Amino acid sequence: MAVPTIAWKDGIIRIIDQTRLPGEIVFLDIASLETLCEAIRSLRVRGAPAIGVAGALGVALAAYHFQGDSRPGLDRTIREAASALNATRPTAVNLPWALGRMTRVLDADPGGAVPDMRERLIREALDMLAEDDAVCRRIGAHGLSLIPDSAVILTHCNAGGLATSGYGTALGVIYAAHEAGKTVRVFADETRPLLQGARLTAWELRESGIPVTVLCDSAAAVLMRKGVIDCVIVGADRIAANGDTANKVGTCGLAVIAKACGVPFYVAAPVSTVDFSIPDGEGIPIEERDGSEIAEGFGVRTVPEGVPLFNPAFDVTPHALISAIVTEEGVLRPPFDAGIRGLRV
Amino acid sequence: MAVPTIAWKDGIIRIIDQTRLPGEIVFLDIASLETLCEAIRSLRVRGAPAIGVAGALGVALAAYHFQGDSRPGLDRTIREAASALNATRPTAVNLPWALGRMTRVLDADPGGAVPDMRERLIREALDMLAEDDAVCRRIGAHGLSLIPDSAVILTHCNAGGLATSGYGTALGVIYAAHEAGKTVRVFADETRPLLQGARLTAWELRESGIPVTVLCDSAAAVLMRKGVIDCVIVGADRIAANGDTANKVGTCGLAVIAKACGVPFYVAAPVSTVDFSIPDGEGIPIEERDGSEIAEGFGVRTVPEGVPLFNPAFDVTPHALISAIVTEEGVLRPPFDAGIRGLRV
Repeated sequence: MAVPTIAWKDGIIRIIDQTRLPGEIVFLDIASLETLCEAIRSLRVRGAPAIGVAGALGVALAAYHFQGDSRPGLDRTIREAASALNATRPTAVNLPWALGRMTRVLDADPGGAVPDMRERLIREALDMLAEDDAVCRRIGAHGLSLIPDSAVILTHCNAGGLATSGYGTALGVIYAAHEAGKTVRVFADETRPLLQGARLTAWELRESGIPVTVLCDSAAAVLMRKGVIDCVIVGADRIAANGDTANKVGTCGLAVIAKACGVPFYVAAPVSTVDFSIPDGEGIPIEERDGSEIAEGFGVRTVPEGVPLFNPAFDVTPHALISAIVTEEGVLRPPFDAGIRGLRV
Repeated sequence: MAVPTIAWKDGIIRIIDQTRLPGEIVFLDIASLETLCEAIRSLRVRGAPAIGVAGALGVALAAYHFQGDSRPGLDRTIREAASALNATRPTAVNLPWALGRMTRVLDADPGGAVPDMRERLIREALDMLAEDDAVCRRIGAHGLSLIPDSAVILTHCNAGGLATSGYGTALGVIYAAHEAGKTVRVFADETRPLLQGARLTAWELRESGIPVTVLCDSAAAVLMRKGVIDCVIVGADRIAANGDTANKVGTCGLAVIAKACGVPFYVAAPVSTVDFSIPDGEGIPIEERDGSEIAEGFGVRTVPEGVPLFNPAFDVTPHALISAIVTEEGVLRPPFDAGIRGLRV
């Protein structure tokens, strides 16, 4: 399936509102930067590659709506838009990566005329939208080799079409295996607190005709200890130079359990998820989100009033627990540092 | 605090309806076996020691309401009640243990007169209710030695006053440490799918003035890897002869992570939780509950229609991951088999 995660038409960004899935399929037409920033902060659009693309399209939106022909005015508008978008969420490096690509369009031609620069900014964002799809398909093609036939695969959160422009990273590998005729069956952790696994991964896979079973995050150890799971595959929000990987909270615990059970643990992500500037996971900023996501999930209070909550949105899986990292450039095996250096262009 | 989990007055079993906590404090007056069986199946009363006591009181209820003076009639009624109660939930061995104690009252005096036997059955159940409290306080006293001052403790599910007749096993140790003047702080996993940690453990601890923070089950690894947690302490639903321990799903994964992080992992449970008849955890029956607990947990459907669910209520933690088992008889250290044999009376 190609999930209609995000699209652009004439100065409008259309996203599927992921907070409404799977109950309702609601599209939002976003025409202002503020609306887009709210949509990213509220996880209406989420997933590291998708928020990278959303950020780029947000800058394109600012370019599209820019009036006048002052080049310093355009530059200021674009940089302010990039700055506002960059402040929405801290962990996924794809967002600053995408925004950096957009502002470099300006840097590369300081004397360019406003109409031309606006057009180039919009084109750059649309290129990134298209590239993301191509990149995911290449991740899928490379990752294919890791998936045995009749594979039973565990995944966490959503690293699917809904986390990208439409095909997915971890789920991209699963889709590629399915398309190649391999039999695959997926166990999807529900992924507390926001249930992206239950709501999004299960929905995507069901739509694609891939058998999927949902379980509580805490039940994954049961399957791994029983030898039911052939491999775990997850996406990533930021990968440090040594391979340490930030991903949805719960990922690190799964990796510890997978290691103890001898289950291969794979990360699938585009090269844009690699942060070459930080040596290891210690440097990755981890977003802490409001405790109400835990205490009032879906409108019912489940934690007594006055009790504090701890709600990190991500955790860091140390590279030593990762069996392979799949990017559009191929499959990296440990030790990752040399391989990751080789991805730098 | 003494939680009013379960009480008996004149042929009525009064329980606090744990499915309504923490939002509402609702007491149920139970006068029939059918109502009690439903209350156990629906987790209105839950926790291995508490359902043992509830089972015994259920048999007392049958004795209380028995009419006539046929001894074979009384025996049949009591055995049918025990059988119905035993069928409610399969994993906690405290239930068959308690029911066995009740039917042995009959076995011990085949010629006893009906009025006398009815009275003795009721007295046996009330003894078990009182003993449970005393046993929990002894578990607390023994477990105290495991808790350092200024301890930060992680627990999972609810092994507190609400899981027993009022004091708790894992939380009993925490209460004992608190009462002994030690400073303790607790992180309580919310415990999907039914959120006993968020709803019950957080409520009990807050009522007792012990600082508690709630987190998603999957975030516990973050704290353990950071070195924040001094020890993990949980209850148990059935302990095999070698120390393998069934407890709420998620426990085994926590134990794997604790081992990997060098965090001591303790189990606290009464001797009635030990199943001397099974050599290891393979023999422990694991209850699978309806998938709707996951899919519709907040009154809102969070899993797409038609997607299967995997919902084991318990898992088995292998003895090799357990640092100590605390019972009312003392603290057992590995290897557990000899120590557990020594508990057999």
